[in-house]
Formats: sequence, structure tokens, C-alpha cells
Amino acid sequence: MEGKVTILGCGSAMPTWQNSPSGQVLELCDKSFLIDCGEGVQIAMRRLGVRTAHLYSVFISHLHGDHCFGLIGLISTFGMMHRTQPLHIYAHADLEKLLRPWLEYHCADLTYEVIFHAINPRKKAVIYEDRTISVETVPLKHKVPTCGFLFYEHHRRQDAQTGEFFYETTKRYAYCSDTMYNERMVEQLEGVKTLYHEATYIDEHLTRCKGTMHSTARQAAMIASRAQAGQLIIGHFSARVDDHELFLNEAQEVFAATVLAEEGKTISI
Amino acid sequence: MEGKVTILGCGSAMPTWQNSPSGQVLELCDKSFLIDCGEGVQIAMRRLGVRTAHLYSVFISHLHGDHCFGLIGLISTFGMMHRTQPLHIYAHADLEKLLRPWLEYHCADLTYEVIFHAINPRKKAVIYEDRTISVETVPLKHKVPTCGFLFYEHHRRQDAQTGEFFYETTKRYAYCSDTMYNERMVEQLEGVKTLYHEATYIDEHLTRCKGTMHSTARQAAMIASRAQAGQLIIGHFSARVDDHELFLNEAQEVFAATVLAEEGKTISI
Repeated sequence: MEGKVTILGCGSAMPTWQNSPSGQVLELCDKSFLIDCGEGVQIAMRRLGVRTAHLYSVFISHLHGDHCFGLIGLISTFGMMHRTQPLHIYAHADLEKLLRPWLEYHCADLTYEVIFHAINPRKKAVIYEDRTISVETVPLKHKVPTCGFLFYEHHRRQDAQTGEFFYETTKRYAYCSDTMYNERMVEQLEGVKTLYHEATYIDEHLTRCKGTMHSTARQAAMIASRAQAGQLIIGHFSARVDDHELFLNEAQEVFAATVLAEEGKTISI
Repeated sequence: MEGKVTILGCGSAMPTWQNSPSGQVLELCDKSFLIDCGEGVQIAMRRLGVRTAHLYSVFISHLHGDHCFGLIGLISTFGMMHRTQPLHIYAHADLEKLLRPWLEYHCADLTYEVIFHAINPRKKAVIYEDRTISVETVPLKHKVPTCGFLFYEHHRRQDAQTGEFFYETTKRYAYCSDTMYNERMVEQLEGVKTLYHEATYIDEHLTRCKGTMHSTARQAAMIASRAQAGQLIIGHFSARVDDHELFLNEAQEVFAATVLAEEGKTISI
């Protein structure tokens, strides 16, 4: 089945002339999933003409501002678009506490329901399931409780010889941001078709990288290599590095099948 | 004295491929003032290289999301930039109530102070004064309590003949958004050098314009004409009108010295 991810923001906390905060839309099995929603994500969606009719679920990795400050604008704009389908938000429980007063003040007349699902980022668990897709949290190591998301695809197949039905399951896409280098995630990610792993820094910032609990491009590539991923997408670039090729070159030394996240880019997964 | 305004967002509530929510930086007498702060304003600042070293004051016209959702990101980013100067925010008292929990959660380690000044948008009052500039609220007519801001410039002059000192006061810049057509503001604005007046719609949307308590480009021009403004800037364009020239043409039929707000554009005032 076709699948693709569109990058809405590939920067880290500090916006730059080329990078906005985190956000991406995953399209898989005729559904859309928004992963993280930094400031400007809904604006990028409108600029890029991203269709939101089938966007029912939003997954928020953690509550640093560059991953969630865009939610209130997104929710508000969906209301102005007369959305009727509920919007499901999967995030740490604190997000609902923070957003509710804003929703009551700014979005009192919403035409649709916003449903929060509290997740525990510290624990691996299936948090979403439909007929063809399930989503599992991937506990990450960052300054605040953070998890990635692993998207499984399930298809019912029939054995040509026995005629029996069975389910074929693919680890289709994993989103791991923000996190420091953490080999413990390798087992869970093993064999994933496409891995998005943050690469905030490059080798020369290794000390800062540890201090802020982020990863270098090389470390992202090491995870992809150990997990035998089919493809690696790197993003969440620091404002300290202007030239994205430096991230790419460093990662490709370890894992050739690496591509750069870039705003507006759609990557086949 | 030189003065200029840089447009960071010129759209109305619904972002489009070309317009982001409201925000502009006014530079006057070696100071910068941010007026309104919709989502993406801090990102536009970074993209355009707007200098924020002398930005001490933010004026928020009203609490619709497209005029204030960008504040939390701005405050957070200023913290990452290790700002030390306090940031003064002039807005309806509800803004502080809404923002405080976010500041405590996301910006607990700010390197500078955020100081809220509650204003009453329904009443004309001087809310800011320094050696050369004062700012007065301009009560507007909109769905929620809203005010514009009138920037006066004061310069100490010496009479060439008598040698006496006096103050020369100029109505330098007025920002009026969002508002329906309201002749009552004309007297206060009389003789202003540059007027920014919202022009959400054009003639053909007059019914919708009244219903949403906005103005057409023609109405903005009528206010500029009656106030004998030196120049009119129109913005806050509806997503319903793709071609900005339609706003410009309509306004210029009434008031020739009209210019379009466009994102990234700096206009001499």
C-alpha cells in the first residue's frame, strides 16, 4: 500500500529562516495522521494544500512548545472550516489541562468534538487501532516525558495454497523525536520500513547534544542501522547548523539510505 | 524622524497559501513595538531577520486567536535567546489569565520578566509613554472588546525667534483592527500620518462584512479620507479573496494614498 509523509516543520526549538517547529502528516491506508504540532503547522498545511478531511488523529510526542504550540490554532481553524468529525489527540495528560481553558475561551462554538487521550510516554503500549493500522508508543529519553510512535500496518491475506486467511503485519513508520541516543529502542524498531529519527546536532556538538538530551545525525543513523530500517529520515535540525547537507553527510557515513526532512517535502515510505 | 512598519502577517482568521494571521513591527524613535501576535509571528520575525533587541512592548488589540496565538511561542523563543530586558504586554486582562499557566509550564526558567498591563479596550486612554512616544487606545467595534492603538511622537523643539522650548506632537501611526466601519474613530485619528485599517472584505461581501463586524476596503478608505490621513495601509484580508489588487483598487477609488499590507513588506510611515 502506498504511504507517504509530508514534512510541515523540521526545525528544533528555535525557528530559523529555513526551519519551523516540528510537525508532519503521515498518510497511510487512506487515513491521515498528524504527528506533533509546533507553531505554524496549520499554516504550513494550508500553504501546502494538505488535505485534512481524513485527519482524525493527532499524536504529540511531548509537551515542549516546539511540538505542541500549534494545536490551539489548528483546532480553531478546523472549527472555522466547519469540521464535523471528532479530532482525537493522543498526548501526555497535561496537554488537556493546558488546552481546555483556551478551548473554552477561544473555541466555545466548535462544530466538532476534540477528544483527548492521555498516554503514558514512559511505557510501550498500543494507543490506537483501526482495521488496518495500529500505533504503539516508543519510550524515548528526553528532558520531559517523551515517546515516539510506531505505525504498524495490518493486511488480511489469503494463503494461495491452503486458502487460509492470516494477517500480514508491517512496521511501516516510526517517529522518534526528541530523544538522546538510546539503543534500547532498537529491538522495538527492528525491521521498520521508514524511521524518522531526530538529528538535532552533528558530531562537533556532541557535548551540547548530551546536555540537551538530543541526538546527532550519526547517532540517528546508528539507530537506523542497528534496527535494519529500510530508510531513515532525519530532522529537528538545530539553528546552529545552517547547512543541512552536514547532517546528511554525517548520517550517510553510517546509513546510506538517509534522506533529509525539508519543509514541504513529501517522502514516500 | 524615520519610522517604518514591517508586516509579519496580513491575513484574517483563516490562514491561506499567502496570508498568515496578524502581526506587525513598528519601528519609531529607535524603539520597536510589536502590534498583535498571531500564530507564526515569531517565525516570520526570524525568517525576515527582524531585530528584537529594542522590542520591549507588545500591544494586543483583542483576544481572537489570529491576534494572540503566537504570543506563547514568541515569549518562549525570547527565553531561548537569553533575553534579559522585560517584555511588556498590553492587552485585555483575560490574556494574562490564559497565558500564565502556559508560562508556568513551558517557560518556568525564563531569563527575563513578562509584565502584563491590563487595558480596557472600550475606553480611550494613554496606556504607554516614554520620552518621545505615547500610545493611546482607540476603541473599536468588533465581536469582542477590541481597541486600536494610536502612536504619538513627541519632540522637544526650540523656537528660533524666542528661544523657547516646546513640544511638537505628531499622530504618527494608528493601527485599527479588527473593526466594523465606525465614524466615531475619525476625530481621534484626525491628521494621522499613517493609518493601518483592516479591510477584511470588498464590496461584494458587504452582508458578511456586517455580520462578522469587519470592514471593506472601501470603508477603510472612507475612514482614512475623513480622518485626512497621510497614508492608508490595508490588511487582514479574508481567505475568500485571493487577489489582493481587488482590495487595493476598491480602496484607491476613495483614497489614493493606499498601500497593501503584504507579508515581509516594510512600509515607511
